[in-house]
Amino acid sequence: MSSKHAVIMAGGAGTRLWPLGRRSRPKQFLPLVDGERSLLKASGDRLHGLIPEQQIHVVAGTEQKKDAEVAFGTMGARFIAEPEGRNTAPCIGLACAWLLRADPDAMVAILPADHWIKDEDQFRSTLARAFDLAAVSGRIVTIGIVPDHAATGFGYLQLDGEENDQGVPLSAFIEKPSGAEAKRMLAAGGYLWNAGMFVARARTLLEEISRQMPSTGKALKRIAEAMGSDSYDEVLVREYANCEAISIDYGVMENAADVWAVPGRFGWSDVGSWDALGEVRANDDQGNAVKGSAVMLDCTNCVVDVADGVTVALADLDNMVVSVTSDAVLVLPRGSSQRVKELLGALVKKGREDLQ
Amino acid sequence: MSSKHAVIMAGGAGTRLWPLGRRSRPKQFLPLVDGERSLLKASGDRLHGLIPEQQIHVVAGTEQKKDAEVAFGTMGARFIAEPEGRNTAPCIGLACAWLLRADPDAMVAILPADHWIKDEDQFRSTLARAFDLAAVSGRIVTIGIVPDHAATGFGYLQLDGEENDQGVPLSAFIEKPSGAEAKRMLAAGGYLWNAGMFVARARTLLEEISRQMPSTGKALKRIAEAMGSDSYDEVLVREYANCEAISIDYGVMENAADVWAVPGRFGWSDVGSWDALGEVRANDDQGNAVKGSAVMLDCTNCVVDVADGVTVALADLDNMVVSVTSDAVLVLPRGSSQRVKELLGALVKKGREDLQ
Repeated sequence: MSSKHAVIMAGGAGTRLWPLGRRSRPKQFLPLVDGERSLLKASGDRLHGLIPEQQIHVVAGTEQKKDAEVAFGTMGARFIAEPEGRNTAPCIGLACAWLLRADPDAMVAILPADHWIKDEDQFRSTLARAFDLAAVSGRIVTIGIVPDHAATGFGYLQLDGEENDQGVPLSAFIEKPSGAEAKRMLAAGGYLWNAGMFVARARTLLEEISRQMPSTGKALKRIAEAMGSDSYDEVLVREYANCEAISIDYGVMENAADVWAVPGRFGWSDVGSWDALGEVRANDDQGNAVKGSAVMLDCTNCVVDVADGVTVALADLDNMVVSVTSDAVLVLPRGSSQRVKELLGALVKKGREDLQ
Repeated sequence: MSSKHAVIMAGGAGTRLWPLGRRSRPKQFLPLVDGERSLLKASGDRLHGLIPEQQIHVVAGTEQKKDAEVAFGTMGARFIAEPEGRNTAPCIGLACAWLLRADPDAMVAILPADHWIKDEDQFRSTLARAFDLAAVSGRIVTIGIVPDHAATGFGYLQLDGEENDQGVPLSAFIEKPSGAEAKRMLAAGGYLWNAGMFVARARTLLEEISRQMPSTGKALKRIAEAMGSDSYDEVLVREYANCEAISIDYGVMENAADVWAVPGRFGWSDVGSWDALGEVRANDDQGNAVKGSAVMLDCTNCVVDVADGVTVALADLDNMVVSVTSDAVLVLPRGSSQRVKELLGALVKKGREDLQ
């Protein structure tokens, strides 16, 4: 049996693609880019050939199980339920504990459920390289994205030296930068975007969590001991609440010893805004990225998303975002899509928490 | 009893304000401009003080009666039902026949139900002047609007000479002009916009219809004879279908003898497009004309119309029209609002006649 596993983290709930994406309908469960396939399903599909299907696990909230299965397909025991969202460090610890129970030598790729990747072959060979390096060295290996612009929406990985056959050592994790910092890093070179993808032995990850987050490590140990017993659900709920709700980057990676990176050059997007979605969706001859049904006269370079059952008619628009669901409408120019958060904040302020 | 009556023609069904205005929900029944008051109701209200309420009649389709009463208030016998829409000449003939039955000396103002008037005092004194001239002279007197731009959306009235105390004689009715013709007329002076408002003795109007449209005159006579009898509904349906379906302008006014005009300077709009609606609605400090609830960040000069129950969020838009109903969304720049017709045509071509 291959010891290669994947854990796809599907518990997030961003609203940057509001009104399409909601807390209760996060973007990983939506067929955002291609046809009817959700981002979550695509995240699993692109592992085929590298990781056996039975070793691809999905972690999400207990209450998200049904949505996750609609978006991904039936997973059986491969669905790992979090009793509550507590950021990525406990989530990864819980998943690793499950993997180790079945496979003490498990190597695991931790992967997001809501990203888009253009060249899947290239992605698989990059991931294979990360598995090789992690297996041979015992290190935690991140896959960082080679930047093509001075993005301020992601953290960065600072490299320590040049890439060799295996990869390249990391010297630091850098938080989301200002525009000026991002430009400086892009110009200087030696940085990758942190895409939240990494590979390690499951045991190594759990050991690092226990070393750097001792109380979380203990809680995870008690959860692991209850696995397979009747008391599991009860222990999980109680002990998971004792885990520190922090990210794996902040809780573990920044202070882990000897982390390496493998640079990814496969075309990547976090689909983190309507602008980003417009860039990854197929465009028509007029540069419009349209999903759903809309009547459009002389529109160019627009991102249009229409739910079933609503009629949308547009004329003479350029470079606009129009998203229409059964209960809400968003219109703004491309380039303003970061304002979705503000708009949603204004709605919440008016008492419309239900729209998040 | 004053012999002043009004007939408000409320049977039209344009779709130029789609998706708000529909065939089944035409703009005269909608509270488009001010608060909760429909254009139809405003058309009646602005007659108060000049015409007794019991002498303000509304003509519309039989099937529109309920909508008309919601929009106007209960009318009782003052609602005159057309069994089918056959343009304005038969409609006016039918209304005049009803008026004459109760009041053989009736003077009548024929008025549209779906226009907006800014200065209602000024309107009433203009209308009073038209009643005076019609009463004294026996003429048909139109109220024409003094043009303030080279509009191509209306017909024009060509004046024959200068205005005197009573009004000014008309020399011709001119169809909707090209842009060049409209500019020429505006520069030359001596033209008014035809707003479809006129005053005459009801008897004179019926006589002119009978003279110029003899078969329609006969049909109307048979309808008048059946008024008050059990056979009225049956006779109306049969004989109304025999009336020529043409406009009063084309069928009567163009060849009527000695028509005069009284120029209107009261601020007028036919509210015939989203652009026009934006001009007559109150604007906020940013120049936005908003009806319904929308969250708007840094939007300027937009026309926004939102039905109850839908959430609309807009950012960084300038000079746009956004109309959202429960089942349809329209977005286009101001200045493109004449394209609504094309958009609706494209929808109908796709089999969506239901959206008209």
